[in-house]
Amino acid sequence: MAQNIYDDPGFFAGYAQLRRSTDGLDGAPEWPALRRLLPPLRGARVIDLGCGYGWFCRYARAQGAAQVLGVDLSARMLERARADTGDAAVEYRQADLDRYAFGDASYDLVYSSLTLHYLDDIAALFARIRAALAPGGRLLFSAEHPIYTAPRHPGWTLDARGRRTWPVDGYRHEGPRLTDWLAPGVRKQHRTLGTVLNALIGAGLRIAHVEEWGPSAEQVARQPELAEENERPMLVLVAADR
Amino acid sequence: MAQNIYDDPGFFAGYAQLRRSTDGLDGAPEWPALRRLLPPLRGARVIDLGCGYGWFCRYARAQGAAQVLGVDLSARMLERARADTGDAAVEYRQADLDRYAFGDASYDLVYSSLTLHYLDDIAALFARIRAALAPGGRLLFSAEHPIYTAPRHPGWTLDARGRRTWPVDGYRHEGPRLTDWLAPGVRKQHRTLGTVLNALIGAGLRIAHVEEWGPSAEQVARQPELAEENERPMLVLVAADR
Repeated sequence: MAQNIYDDPGFFAGYAQLRRSTDGLDGAPEWPALRRLLPPLRGARVIDLGCGYGWFCRYARAQGAAQVLGVDLSARMLERARADTGDAAVEYRQADLDRYAFGDASYDLVYSSLTLHYLDDIAALFARIRAALAPGGRLLFSAEHPIYTAPRHPGWTLDARGRRTWPVDGYRHEGPRLTDWLAPGVRKQHRTLGTVLNALIGAGLRIAHVEEWGPSAEQVARQPELAEENERPMLVLVAADR
Repeated sequence: MAQNIYDDPGFFAGYAQLRRSTDGLDGAPEWPALRRLLPPLRGARVIDLGCGYGWFCRYARAQGAAQVLGVDLSARMLERARADTGDAAVEYRQADLDRYAFGDASYDLVYSSLTLHYLDDIAALFARIRAALAPGGRLLFSAEHPIYTAPRHPGWTLDARGRRTWPVDGYRHEGPRLTDWLAPGVRKQHRTLGTVLNALIGAGLRIAHVEEWGPSAEQVARQPELAEENERPMLVLVAADR
Protein backbone atom coordinates (compact mmCIF):
# COMPACT_ATOMS: atom_id res chain seq x y z
CA MET A 1 0.00 0.00 0.00
CA ALA A 2 1.03 3.64 -0.38
CA GLN A 3 3.01 5.31 2.40
CA ASN A 4 0.84 7.62 4.53
CA ILE A 5 3.49 10.34 4.78
CA TYR A 6 0.98 13.20 4.91
CA ASP A 7 -0.09 12.03 8.38
CA ASP A 8 3.51 12.33 9.59
CA PRO A 9 3.36 15.38 11.92
CA GLY A 10 6.57 16.94 10.60
CA PHE A 11 5.58 16.40 6.98
CA PHE A 12 2.08 17.73 7.59
CA ALA A 13 3.42 20.84 9.30
CA GLY A 14 5.86 21.50 6.47
CA TYR A 15 3.28 20.86 3.79
CA ALA A 16 0.86 23.26 5.47
CA GLN A 17 3.32 26.09 4.80
CA LEU A 18 3.72 25.53 1.04
CA ARG A 19 2.11 28.11 -1.20
CA ARG A 20 -0.12 25.43 -2.68
CA SER A 21 -1.45 24.84 0.85
CA THR A 22 -1.86 28.43 1.97
CA ASP A 23 -3.04 29.85 -1.38
CA GLY A 24 -4.90 26.82 -2.75
CA LEU A 25 -5.06 26.15 -6.48
CA ASP A 26 -3.68 29.58 -7.36
CA GLY A 27 -0.60 28.79 -5.26
CA ALA A 28 0.30 25.92 -7.60
CA PRO A 29 2.10 27.25 -10.71
CA GLU A 30 0.89 24.32 -12.84
CA TRP A 31 -2.77 25.07 -12.05
CA PRO A 32 -3.45 27.32 -15.09
CA ALA A 33 -2.18 24.53 -17.36
CA LEU A 34 -4.25 21.89 -15.58
CA ARG A 35 -7.35 24.10 -15.65
CA ARG A 36 -7.06 24.40 -19.45
CA LEU A 37 -7.42 20.60 -19.63
CA LEU A 38 -10.60 20.38 -17.54
CA PRO A 39 -13.83 19.30 -19.20
CA PRO A 40 -16.95 21.41 -18.59
CA LEU A 41 -17.78 21.03 -14.89
CA ARG A 42 -21.38 22.21 -14.85
CA GLY A 43 -23.52 19.26 -13.78
CA ALA A 44 -20.50 16.93 -13.76
CA ARG A 45 -19.86 14.06 -11.37
CA VAL A 46 -16.29 14.48 -10.14
CA ILE A 47 -13.85 12.46 -8.04
CA ASP A 48 -10.51 13.82 -6.82
CA LEU A 49 -7.95 11.12 -6.01
CA GLY A 50 -5.59 12.49 -3.38
CA CYS A 51 -7.78 15.48 -2.61
CA GLY A 52 -5.70 16.80 0.29
CA TYR A 53 -7.30 19.91 1.78
CA GLY A 54 -10.15 19.73 -0.73
CA TRP A 55 -9.22 22.84 -2.75
CA PHE A 56 -10.07 21.23 -6.07
CA CYS A 57 -13.27 19.65 -4.74
CA ARG A 58 -14.54 23.06 -3.70
CA TYR A 59 -13.40 24.59 -7.02
CA ALA A 60 -15.26 21.92 -9.02
CA ARG A 61 -18.38 22.52 -6.98
CA ALA A 62 -18.09 26.30 -7.44
CA GLN A 63 -17.90 25.65 -11.20
CA GLY A 64 -21.22 23.85 -11.03
CA ALA A 65 -20.26 20.20 -10.54
CA ALA A 66 -23.30 18.23 -9.38
CA GLN A 67 -21.44 15.90 -7.00
CA VAL A 68 -17.85 15.82 -5.85
CA LEU A 69 -16.05 13.11 -3.93
CA GLY A 70 -12.59 13.65 -2.50
CA VAL A 71 -10.50 10.62 -1.55
CA ASP A 72 -7.28 10.75 0.44
CA LEU A 73 -5.16 8.47 2.59
CA SER A 74 -4.41 11.15 5.16
CA ALA A 75 -6.84 11.57 8.05
CA ARG A 76 -5.27 14.94 8.89
CA MET A 77 -5.77 16.27 5.37
CA LEU A 78 -9.39 15.12 5.31
CA GLU A 79 -10.08 16.61 8.71
CA ARG A 80 -9.11 20.01 7.39
CA ALA A 81 -10.88 19.43 4.06
CA ARG A 82 -14.12 18.72 5.91
CA ALA A 83 -13.67 21.72 8.20
CA ASP A 84 -13.14 23.97 5.15
CA THR A 85 -16.10 22.62 3.16
CA GLY A 86 -19.72 23.25 4.10
CA ASP A 87 -21.50 21.68 1.16
CA ALA A 88 -23.63 18.54 1.16
CA ALA A 89 -22.70 17.84 -2.48
CA VAL A 90 -19.01 17.47 -1.55
CA GLU A 91 -18.07 14.30 0.28
CA TYR A 92 -14.71 13.12 1.58
CA ARG A 93 -13.58 9.56 2.12
CA GLN A 94 -10.39 8.10 3.58
CA ALA A 95 -8.91 5.32 1.43
CA ASP A 96 -5.69 3.91 0.02
CA LEU A 97 -5.90 4.49 -3.74
CA ASP A 98 -3.91 1.32 -4.37
CA ARG A 99 -7.02 -0.52 -3.12
CA TYR A 100 -9.86 1.94 -3.57
CA ALA A 101 -13.01 0.43 -5.10
CA PHE A 102 -15.06 2.91 -7.10
CA GLY A 103 -18.26 0.91 -6.69
CA ASP A 104 -20.86 1.49 -9.38
CA ALA A 105 -20.13 5.20 -9.61
CA SER A 106 -19.99 6.89 -13.01
CA TYR A 107 -17.75 9.96 -13.23
CA ASP A 108 -17.38 12.64 -15.86
CA LEU A 109 -14.02 13.63 -14.41
CA VAL A 110 -11.45 11.71 -12.43
CA TYR A 111 -8.92 14.26 -11.22
CA SER A 112 -5.67 13.67 -9.39
CA SER A 113 -3.00 16.18 -8.47
CA LEU A 114 0.51 15.03 -7.52
CA THR A 115 -0.63 11.73 -6.06
CA LEU A 116 -0.06 8.92 -8.57
CA HIS A 117 3.71 8.84 -8.03
CA TYR A 118 3.04 7.56 -4.50
CA LEU A 119 1.06 4.54 -5.69
CA ASP A 120 2.36 1.01 -6.17
CA ASP A 121 0.22 -0.17 -9.07
CA ILE A 122 -1.08 2.43 -11.48
CA ALA A 123 -2.05 -0.10 -14.18
CA ALA A 124 -4.62 -1.63 -11.82
CA LEU A 125 -5.79 1.84 -10.76
CA PHE A 126 -6.20 2.97 -14.38
CA ALA A 127 -8.33 -0.12 -15.11
CA ARG A 128 -10.59 0.77 -12.17
CA ILE A 129 -10.72 4.40 -13.29
CA ARG A 130 -11.68 3.34 -16.81
CA ALA A 131 -14.56 1.30 -15.40
CA ALA A 132 -15.67 4.24 -13.22
CA LEU A 133 -15.64 6.81 -16.06
CA ALA A 134 -18.81 7.63 -17.94
CA PRO A 135 -18.47 7.33 -21.74
CA GLY A 136 -16.67 10.47 -22.88
CA GLY A 137 -15.38 11.03 -19.34
CA ARG A 138 -11.85 12.29 -18.68
CA LEU A 139 -9.01 11.32 -16.40
CA LEU A 140 -6.81 14.36 -15.75
CA PHE A 141 -3.77 14.11 -13.54
CA SER A 142 -0.49 15.67 -12.64
CA ALA A 143 2.42 13.62 -11.32
CA GLU A 144 6.11 14.04 -10.75
CA HIS A 145 7.98 13.71 -14.06
CA PRO A 146 10.27 10.69 -14.40
CA ILE A 147 13.23 12.97 -15.13
CA TYR A 148 12.63 14.29 -11.62
CA THR A 149 12.02 10.95 -9.91
CA ALA A 150 14.63 8.82 -11.74
CA PRO A 151 17.95 9.88 -10.20
CA ARG A 152 19.37 7.83 -7.38
CA HIS A 153 20.57 11.08 -5.79
CA PRO A 154 18.35 13.83 -7.22
CA GLY A 155 19.44 17.44 -7.14
CA TRP A 156 20.86 20.27 -9.21
CA THR A 157 24.60 20.04 -9.80
CA LEU A 158 27.25 22.34 -11.17
CA ASP A 159 29.03 20.68 -14.07
CA ALA A 160 32.71 21.10 -14.93
CA ARG A 161 31.88 24.33 -16.80
CA GLY A 162 30.05 25.72 -13.75
CA ARG A 163 26.64 25.30 -15.34
CA ARG A 164 23.65 24.11 -13.37
CA THR A 165 22.30 20.81 -14.68
CA TRP A 166 20.02 18.03 -13.45
CA PRO A 167 21.98 14.77 -13.56
CA VAL A 168 19.85 11.82 -14.67
CA ASP A 169 20.54 8.17 -14.02
CA GLY A 170 18.38 5.13 -13.32
CA TYR A 171 15.70 6.29 -15.75
CA ARG A 172 14.64 2.81 -16.84
CA HIS A 173 15.16 1.27 -13.41
CA GLU A 174 11.60 1.56 -12.18
CA GLY A 175 10.58 1.18 -8.57
CA PRO A 176 10.64 2.96 -5.23
CA ARG A 177 12.73 6.04 -4.57
CA LEU A 178 13.27 7.40 -1.08
CA THR A 179 13.86 11.13 -0.77
CA ASP A 180 13.94 13.59 2.06
CA TRP A 181 11.31 16.27 1.43
CA LEU A 182 9.60 17.87 4.44
CA ALA A 183 10.32 14.58 6.25
CA PRO A 184 13.01 11.89 5.84
CA GLY A 185 12.27 8.78 3.80
CA VAL A 186 9.37 9.91 1.63
CA ARG A 187 8.65 6.98 -0.69
CA LYS A 188 7.71 7.59 -4.32
CA GLN A 189 7.45 5.20 -7.24
CA HIS A 190 9.56 5.98 -10.30
CA ARG A 191 8.12 4.89 -13.64
CA THR A 192 9.06 5.92 -17.15
CA LEU A 193 6.62 8.16 -18.97
CA GLY A 194 6.18 5.35 -21.49
CA THR A 195 5.07 2.99 -18.73
CA VAL A 196 2.46 5.47 -17.51
CA LEU A 197 1.12 6.18 -21.00
CA ASN A 198 1.06 2.51 -22.01
CA ALA A 199 -0.81 1.69 -18.79
CA LEU A 200 -3.47 4.24 -19.76
CA ILE A 201 -3.71 2.80 -23.26
CA GLY A 202 -3.78 -0.74 -21.87
CA ALA A 203 -6.69 0.24 -19.62
CA GLY A 204 -8.66 1.32 -22.68
CA LEU A 205 -8.18 5.08 -22.34
CA ARG A 206 -7.27 7.40 -25.19
CA ILE A 207 -4.37 9.78 -24.57
CA ALA A 208 -5.66 13.30 -25.18
CA HIS A 209 -2.78 15.49 -23.96
CA VAL A 210 0.69 15.11 -22.45
CA GLU A 211 2.37 18.20 -21.05
CA GLU A 212 5.80 18.24 -19.49
CA TRP A 213 4.93 21.29 -17.48
CA GLY A 214 7.00 24.43 -17.24
CA PRO A 215 6.19 28.03 -16.35
CA SER A 216 5.24 30.71 -18.86
CA ALA A 217 7.52 33.73 -19.39
CA GLU A 218 5.00 35.73 -17.35
CA GLN A 219 5.21 33.28 -14.45
CA VAL A 220 9.02 33.36 -14.53
CA ALA A 221 8.92 37.18 -14.48
CA ARG A 222 6.80 37.04 -11.33
CA GLN A 223 8.61 34.07 -9.73
CA PRO A 224 12.15 33.82 -11.13
CA GLU A 225 12.83 30.63 -9.13
CA LEU A 226 10.42 28.81 -11.47
CA ALA A 227 12.81 29.19 -14.43
CA GLU A 228 14.55 25.93 -13.52
CA GLU A 229 11.37 24.02 -14.40
CA ASN A 230 12.11 24.88 -18.05
CA GLU A 231 15.57 23.29 -17.71
CA ARG A 232 14.20 19.94 -16.49
CA PRO A 233 10.50 19.32 -15.96
CA MET A 234 9.40 18.35 -12.46
CA LEU A 235 5.78 17.67 -13.40
CA VAL A 236 3.87 15.98 -16.14
CA LEU A 237 0.18 16.64 -16.84
CA VAL A 238 -1.82 13.99 -18.66
CA ALA A 239 -5.38 13.91 -19.95
CA ALA A 240 -6.89 10.62 -21.13
CA ASP A 241 -10.45 10.02 -22.23
CA ARG A 242 -12.80 7.10 -22.15
CA MET B 1 14.57 22.33 -44.76
CA ALA B 2 16.41 19.50 -43.08
CA GLN B 3 20.21 19.44 -43.17
CA ASN B 4 21.54 16.89 -45.67
CA ILE B 5 24.32 15.68 -43.40
CA TYR B 6 24.28 12.11 -44.71
CA ASP B 7 25.67 13.37 -48.04
CA ASP B 8 28.65 14.88 -46.19
CA PRO B 9 31.55 12.58 -47.27
CA GLY B 10 33.01 12.32 -43.76
CA PHE B 11 29.64 11.66 -42.16
CA PHE B 12 28.74 9.13 -44.83
CA ALA B 13 32.03 7.28 -44.39
CA GLY B 14 31.61 7.20 -40.61
CA TYR B 15 28.00 6.13 -40.82
CA ALA B 16 28.92 3.31 -43.17
CA GLN B 17 30.98 1.73 -40.40
CA LEU B 18 28.26 1.65 -37.73
CA ARG B 19 26.85 -1.74 -36.88
CA ARG B 20 23.42 -0.61 -38.02
CA SER B 21 24.99 0.02 -41.44
CA THR B 22 27.10 -3.11 -41.78
CA ASP B 23 24.64 -5.53 -40.13
CA GLY B 24 21.36 -3.90 -41.13
CA LEU B 25 18.31 -4.13 -38.89
CA ASP B 26 19.91 -6.74 -36.63
CA GLY B 27 22.77 -4.33 -35.99
CA ALA B 28 20.36 -1.87 -34.33
CA PRO B 29 19.69 -2.87 -30.72
CA GLU B 30 16.24 -1.25 -30.75
CA TRP B 31 15.12 -3.30 -33.75
CA PRO B 32 13.52 -6.18 -31.78
CA ALA B 33 11.39 -3.64 -29.89
CA LEU B 34 10.40 -1.83 -33.10
CA ARG B 35 9.60 -5.11 -34.82
CA ARG B 36 7.15 -6.01 -32.02
CA LEU B 37 5.18 -2.85 -32.91
CA LEU B 38 4.86 -3.61 -36.62
CA PRO B 39 1.44 -4.36 -38.06
CA PRO B 40 1.06 -7.46 -40.29
CA LEU B 41 3.10 -6.73 -43.41
CA ARG B 42 1.64 -9.31 -45.80
CA GLY B 43 -0.03 -7.42 -48.63
CA ALA B 44 0.66 -4.07 -46.95
CA ARG B 45 1.50 -0.78 -48.65
CA VAL B 46 4.53 0.63 -46.83
CA ILE B 47 6.52 3.86 -46.88
CA ASP B 48 9.80 4.34 -45.04
CA LEU B 49 10.64 7.98 -44.27
CA GLY B 50 14.41 8.28 -44.05
CA CYS B 51 15.03 4.86 -45.54
CA GLY B 52 18.82 5.17 -45.74
CA TYR B 53 20.34 2.03 -47.25
CA GLY B 54 16.88 0.47 -47.65
CA TRP B 55 17.28 -2.27 -45.02
CA PHE B 56 13.74 -1.87 -43.74
CA CYS B 57 12.27 -1.59 -47.25
CA ARG B 58 13.77 -4.93 -48.16
CA TYR B 59 12.66 -6.45 -44.84
CA ALA B 60 9.06 -5.28 -45.37
CA ARG B 61 9.08 -6.76 -48.84
CA ALA B 62 10.52 -10.04 -47.58
CA GLN B 63 7.65 -10.14 -45.06
CA GLY B 64 5.17 -9.94 -47.90
CA ALA B 65 4.50 -6.20 -48.27
CA ALA B 66 2.82 -5.54 -51.62
CA GLN B 67 4.54 -2.23 -52.34
CA VAL B 68 7.33 -0.40 -50.56
CA LEU B 69 8.53 3.15 -51.08
CA GLY B 70 11.69 4.44 -49.45
CA VAL B 71 12.23 8.19 -49.18
CA ASP B 72 15.47 9.85 -48.17
CA LEU B 73 17.22 13.21 -48.54
CA SER B 74 20.60 11.65 -49.18
CA ALA B 75 21.54 10.81 -52.75
CA ARG B 76 24.44 8.68 -51.51
CA MET B 77 22.21 6.60 -49.26
CA LEU B 78 19.68 6.07 -52.06
CA GLU B 79 22.39 5.12 -54.53
CA ARG B 80 23.44 2.28 -52.27
CA ALA B 81 19.80 1.39 -51.44
CA ARG B 82 19.05 0.98 -55.14
CA ALA B 83 22.22 -1.02 -55.74
CA ASP B 84 21.29 -3.38 -52.89
CA THR B 85 17.65 -3.85 -53.96
CA GLY B 86 16.61 -5.77 -57.04
CA ASP B 87 12.85 -5.74 -56.68
CA ALA B 88 10.32 -3.87 -58.83
CA ALA B 89 7.94 -3.58 -55.87
CA VAL B 90 10.47 -1.50 -53.93
CA GLU B 91 10.95 2.07 -55.10
CA TYR B 92 13.23 4.82 -53.80
CA ARG B 93 12.72 8.54 -54.04
CA GLN B 94 14.89 11.49 -53.01
CA ALA B 95 12.98 14.15 -51.07
CA ASP B 96 13.13 16.51 -48.10
CA LEU B 97 10.57 15.15 -45.63
CA ASP B 98 9.85 18.68 -44.42
CA ARG B 99 8.26 19.21 -47.84
CA TYR B 100 7.42 15.75 -49.09
CA ALA B 101 3.95 15.42 -50.64
CA PHE B 102 2.44 11.96 -50.28
CA GLY B 103 0.12 12.44 -53.25
CA ASP B 104 -2.99 10.26 -53.21
CA ALA B 105 -1.17 7.25 -51.78
CA SER B 106 -2.80 5.15 -49.06
CA TYR B 107 -0.42 3.36 -46.71
CA ASP B 108 -0.96 0.63 -44.15
CA LEU B 109 2.35 1.49 -42.51
CA VAL B 110 4.36 4.69 -42.38
CA TYR B 111 7.70 3.74 -40.85
CA SER B 112 10.55 6.03 -39.86
CA SER B 113 13.76 5.13 -38.07
CA LEU B 114 15.87 7.85 -36.41
CA THR B 115 14.87 10.56 -38.86
CA LEU B 116 12.19 12.79 -37.34
CA HIS B 117 14.62 14.59 -35.00
CA TYR B 118 16.25 16.13 -38.10
CA LEU B 119 13.01 17.70 -39.32
CA ASP B 120 11.87 21.28 -38.76
CA ASP B 121 8.12 20.83 -38.62
CA ILE B 122 6.77 17.50 -37.41
CA ALA B 123 3.22 18.78 -36.81
CA ALA B 124 2.85 19.49 -40.53
CA LEU B 125 4.45 16.14 -41.38
CA PHE B 126 2.09 14.26 -39.03
CA ALA B 127 -0.91 15.91 -40.69
CA ARG B 128 0.34 14.76 -44.11
CA ILE B 129 1.02 11.27 -42.72
CA ARG B 130 -2.50 11.10 -41.27
CA ALA B 131 -3.92 11.94 -44.69
CA ALA B 132 -1.72 9.30 -46.35
CA LEU B 133 -2.64 6.50 -43.93
CA ALA B 134 -5.37 4.04 -44.77
CA PRO B 135 -8.05 3.69 -42.08
CA GLY B 136 -6.52 1.46 -39.38
CA GLY B 137 -3.04 2.22 -40.72
CA ARG B 138 -0.10 2.77 -38.38
CA LEU B 139 2.69 5.29 -38.05
CA LEU B 140 5.66 3.67 -36.31
CA PHE B 141 8.81 5.64 -35.65
CA SER B 142 11.93 5.84 -33.58
CA ALA B 143 13.60 9.15 -32.78
CA GLU B 144 16.21 10.48 -30.43
CA HIS B 145 14.74 10.92 -26.95
CA PRO B 146 14.44 14.50 -25.67
CA ILE B 147 16.51 13.62 -22.60
CA TYR B 148 19.26 12.89 -25.12
CA THR B 149 18.73 15.92 -27.36
CA ALA B 150 17.94 18.54 -24.70
CA PRO B 151 21.32 19.34 -23.12
CA ARG B 152 23.25 22.32 -24.40
CA HIS B 153 26.44 20.27 -23.95
CA PRO B 154 25.38 16.63 -24.04
CA GLY B 155 27.57 13.92 -22.60
CA TRP B 156 28.07 11.62 -19.64
CA THR B 157 29.61 13.31 -16.61
CA LEU B 158 31.06 12.15 -13.33
CA ASP B 159 29.23 13.81 -10.44
CA ALA B 160 30.81 14.85 -7.14
CA ARG B 161 30.41 11.28 -5.86
CA GLY B 162 32.17 9.87 -8.92
CA ARG B 163 28.98 8.46 -10.40
CA ARG B 164 28.26 8.61 -14.09
CA THR B 165 25.17 10.68 -14.84
CA TRP B 166 23.62 12.41 -17.86
CA PRO B 167 23.21 16.10 -17.02
CA VAL B 168 20.00 17.56 -18.39
CA ASP B 169 19.28 21.20 -19.05
CA GLY B 170 17.29 23.09 -21.67
CA TYR B 171 14.57 20.44 -21.74
CA ARG B 172 11.72 22.83 -22.48
CA HIS B 173 13.81 25.09 -24.68
CA GLU B 174 12.85 23.57 -28.01
CA GLY B 175 14.73 24.19 -31.21
CA PRO B 176 17.91 23.29 -33.06
CA ARG B 177 20.85 21.59 -31.39
CA LEU B 178 24.24 21.32 -33.05
CA THR B 179 26.37 18.33 -32.10
CA ASP B 180 29.51 16.75 -33.45
CA TRP B 181 28.73 13.16 -34.37
CA LEU B 182 30.67 11.60 -37.28
CA ALA B 183 30.97 15.17 -38.62
CA PRO B 184 30.98 18.60 -36.98
CA GLY B 185 27.79 20.63 -36.76
CA VAL B 186 25.12 17.97 -37.16
CA ARG B 187 21.82 19.79 -36.72
CA LYS B 188 18.96 18.15 -34.84
CA GLN B 189 15.70 19.56 -33.55
CA HIS B 190 14.98 19.16 -29.86
CA ARG B 191 11.33 18.84 -28.88
CA THR B 192 9.76 17.65 -25.66
CA LEU B 193 8.07 14.27 -25.73
CA GLY B 194 4.81 16.05 -24.94
CA THR B 195 5.19 18.20 -28.04
CA VAL B 196 5.69 15.14 -30.24
CA LEU B 197 2.75 13.25 -28.73
CA ASN B 198 0.42 16.26 -28.82
CA ALA B 199 1.35 16.82 -32.47
CA LEU B 200 0.29 13.23 -33.24
CA ILE B 201 -2.98 13.71 -31.36
CA GLY B 202 -3.53 17.08 -33.04
CA ALA B 203 -3.09 15.41 -36.43
CA GLY B 204 -5.90 13.00 -35.59
CA LEU B 205 -3.79 9.97 -34.73
CA ARG B 206 -4.34 7.74 -31.72
CA ILE B 207 -1.29 7.02 -29.56
CA ALA B 208 -0.93 3.23 -29.39
CA HIS B 209 2.47 2.78 -27.70
CA VAL B 210 5.29 4.91 -26.29
CA GLU B 211 8.54 3.17 -25.42
CA GLU B 212 11.57 4.91 -23.99
CA TRP B 213 13.83 2.25 -25.33
CA GLY B 214 16.48 0.41 -23.40
CA PRO B 215 18.21 -2.93 -23.87
CA SER B 216 17.04 -6.18 -22.33
CA ALA B 217 19.20 -7.97 -19.74
CA GLU B 218 20.12 -10.41 -22.52
CA GLN B 219 21.29 -7.59 -24.78
CA VAL B 220 23.36 -6.06 -21.98
CA ALA B 221 24.97 -9.46 -21.32
CA ARG B 222 26.01 -9.62 -24.99
CA GLN B 223 26.87 -5.92 -25.34
CA PRO B 224 27.72 -4.45 -21.91
CA GLU B 225 28.16 -0.95 -23.39
CA LEU B 226 24.39 -0.85 -23.93
CA ALA B 227 23.73 -0.74 -20.16
CA GLU B 228 23.95 3.06 -20.16
CA GLU B 229 20.75 3.22 -22.23
CA ASN B 230 18.91 2.07 -19.10
CA GLU B 231 20.36 5.02 -17.16
CA ARG B 232 19.05 7.61 -19.63
CA PRO B 233 17.14 6.68 -22.76
CA MET B 234 18.64 7.76 -26.08
CA LEU B 235 15.69 6.62 -28.17
CA VAL B 236 11.94 6.74 -28.06
CA LEU B 237 9.69 4.44 -30.09
CA VAL B 238 6.15 5.56 -30.85
CA ALA B 239 3.23 3.84 -32.56
CA ALA B 240 0.16 5.87 -33.51
CA ASP B 241 -2.85 4.68 -35.45
CA ARG B 242 -5.34 6.26 -37.76
